[in-house]
Amino acid sequence: MTIKISIDCMGGDHGLSVTIPAAISFLKREAQAELILVGLEDAIRAELKKHHADAHPRISIHHASEQVAMDDPLEVALRRKKDSSMRVAVEQVKDGKAQAAVSAGNTGALMAVSRYVLKTMAGVDRPAICSIMPNQKGGPTYMLDLGANVDCEPHHLHQFAIMGSVLVHAMEGIARPTIGLLNVGTEDIKGNEVVKLTSKLLQADHERGALNFYGNVEGNDIFKGTTDLVVCDGFVGNVTLKSVEGVARFFKDVLTSEFKRNIFTMLGALIASSALKAIKSRLNPSRYNGASLLGLRGLVFKSHGGADAYSFEWAIRRAYDAAKNDVQAQLSTMIAELMPRSTETTQEPSSVT
Amino acid sequence: MTIKISIDCMGGDHGLSVTIPAAISFLKREAQAELILVGLEDAIRAELKKHHADAHPRISIHHASEQVAMDDPLEVALRRKKDSSMRVAVEQVKDGKAQAAVSAGNTGALMAVSRYVLKTMAGVDRPAICSIMPNQKGGPTYMLDLGANVDCEPHHLHQFAIMGSVLVHAMEGIARPTIGLLNVGTEDIKGNEVVKLTSKLLQADHERGALNFYGNVEGNDIFKGTTDLVVCDGFVGNVTLKSVEGVARFFKDVLTSEFKRNIFTMLGALIASSALKAIKSRLNPSRYNGASLLGLRGLVFKSHGGADAYSFEWAIRRAYDAAKNDVQAQLSTMIAELMPRSTETTQEPSSVT
Repeated sequence: MTIKISIDCMGGDHGLSVTIPAAISFLKREAQAELILVGLEDAIRAELKKHHADAHPRISIHHASEQVAMDDPLEVALRRKKDSSMRVAVEQVKDGKAQAAVSAGNTGALMAVSRYVLKTMAGVDRPAICSIMPNQKGGPTYMLDLGANVDCEPHHLHQFAIMGSVLVHAMEGIARPTIGLLNVGTEDIKGNEVVKLTSKLLQADHERGALNFYGNVEGNDIFKGTTDLVVCDGFVGNVTLKSVEGVARFFKDVLTSEFKRNIFTMLGALIASSALKAIKSRLNPSRYNGASLLGLRGLVFKSHGGADAYSFEWAIRRAYDAAKNDVQAQLSTMIAELMPRSTETTQEPSSVT
Repeated sequence: MTIKISIDCMGGDHGLSVTIPAAISFLKREAQAELILVGLEDAIRAELKKHHADAHPRISIHHASEQVAMDDPLEVALRRKKDSSMRVAVEQVKDGKAQAAVSAGNTGALMAVSRYVLKTMAGVDRPAICSIMPNQKGGPTYMLDLGANVDCEPHHLHQFAIMGSVLVHAMEGIARPTIGLLNVGTEDIKGNEVVKLTSKLLQADHERGALNFYGNVEGNDIFKGTTDLVVCDGFVGNVTLKSVEGVARFFKDVLTSEFKRNIFTMLGALIASSALKAIKSRLNPSRYNGASLLGLRGLVFKSHGGADAYSFEWAIRRAYDAAKNDVQAQLSTMIAELMPRSTETTQEPSSVT
């Protein structure tokens, strides 16, 4: 079955110079995939030509006259730039022309535009951002929310757990993914009020067999791979994600500079190059690029803004895998089963005409 | 001038086998220092003898018949074990016999015991835990709170900023340390309600010249060294700290296993051993061991529970440096100047008789 993904080609720090090579490389890997490239048509054509792919049979171009800048306020992304490549890429999903959209644009803008265009799923109060981190067991640890919701109530975290669990199930084929609640200790008495109340909700789901709740986990459990999924609010998740990225960059810089220090260290690096390559590959954040915006009526994936082509291709691959595994249908089914009635009126950005 | 530090010799995962060698090694380094070793007298003597230090002229032993286990509930540490090595070590500070206490025991217990024995400083609502992380500029980034306060109001974070700023000033000799408020973005509109309100308090202090507030920082700024101090609540701080420790361990394991993979990678590691040594030293978390419990009427330092002797020695060194730089007096003076009137009644653990 052919799966179509729409790409916001203008988003991110590098725009076309990253998104086009990534798209071409992705199509080489996935023979069943088709891409809709969204953005300035002439510029996209020119970039495709550079890579001798201007007549690719599985690429179509959808012109969009505007682009959302990384520092555009939400209002501008939402209300002023109605023909932005970001918005038009998401509209392809809404119109059924693509099964998922990918953008490296501003996270807040992408979430606002996606909520406006696609709307939130029935039963979900707030969409969340879910991504993966490497762990010592060799698998990915899924984690959400990574920044969409900075002030959360227990029922929000509860919904994140349900959505995340469905995503892990669909993407990894794990029957009953284990769920950890991020906390400052593993004992029940630990944590702030929101986390303590969330724990009770998840425990109740566990007891009736609806979710596989492991209990509290700590920051280091993300990398131990203690649970398949780690749930937290968007403030904690975002700070953790960026701290970890910061440490990884620090580590990489130290590694590089120390091995370049003198002829012996360079020689050592040369001889041990397979080890260094393996280290870089195992710790490469590029392989973990591509966060899901979960809880919308359609699949949207967010790439890191500073992603290079290799890394952006991973985001496309994740979107493709999600579409292929029919994550959206599984989400709908399982949320209808598991989700308690919504306790708040979903607020969509309103009066955008 | 002689400076005396009291050591809880029984605390931590390893007790005497770590604390005694660390104490002896520390005294070799600091000719002006004296140590009061607190714990089971016979066991301490036996361990000192093993290291040929049973007649060390700068060591005195203070017997304490009990010890706080790592998993003892707070009530037990506080109310039942009144002759614990942890409590007696802190009492040495209260009684003026030591200028600072060091323990690798349970953090919650140490904080509760310290608050009970020493009391909170005038003007401070809640003590906080402050530690250091390495940054790419080669210096330490100070960060608080790392877990003492999981539910914080803006005025708590404000007080943490003041206390942390004084600590950086006293320990690093920086006239006006820069203060960053940990957030999910650098723009003023970012963050949850508590952080937004804290930002206003810090901005007001900045404008009247009382504090050097840089503004919002993100997780990666901790390791970039964007500011001298990073302020956050204890929930976020604890999760971040443990996540970073988890990533560091993951890195170390990958590095070690890849270089041991075959004869070439081992040979490469051998030739580049100076690079590997430098990498391990620059990223060694042991060098950053020793967190201050700030805001008490006396200096208390907490070592990582799993610390080895090398790492525990760093915690003693940090306590010694704090005492030498008279951090406590500087805190008292500057808090009296900077701190707005306390808005809540300080709650000490009560009715411990």
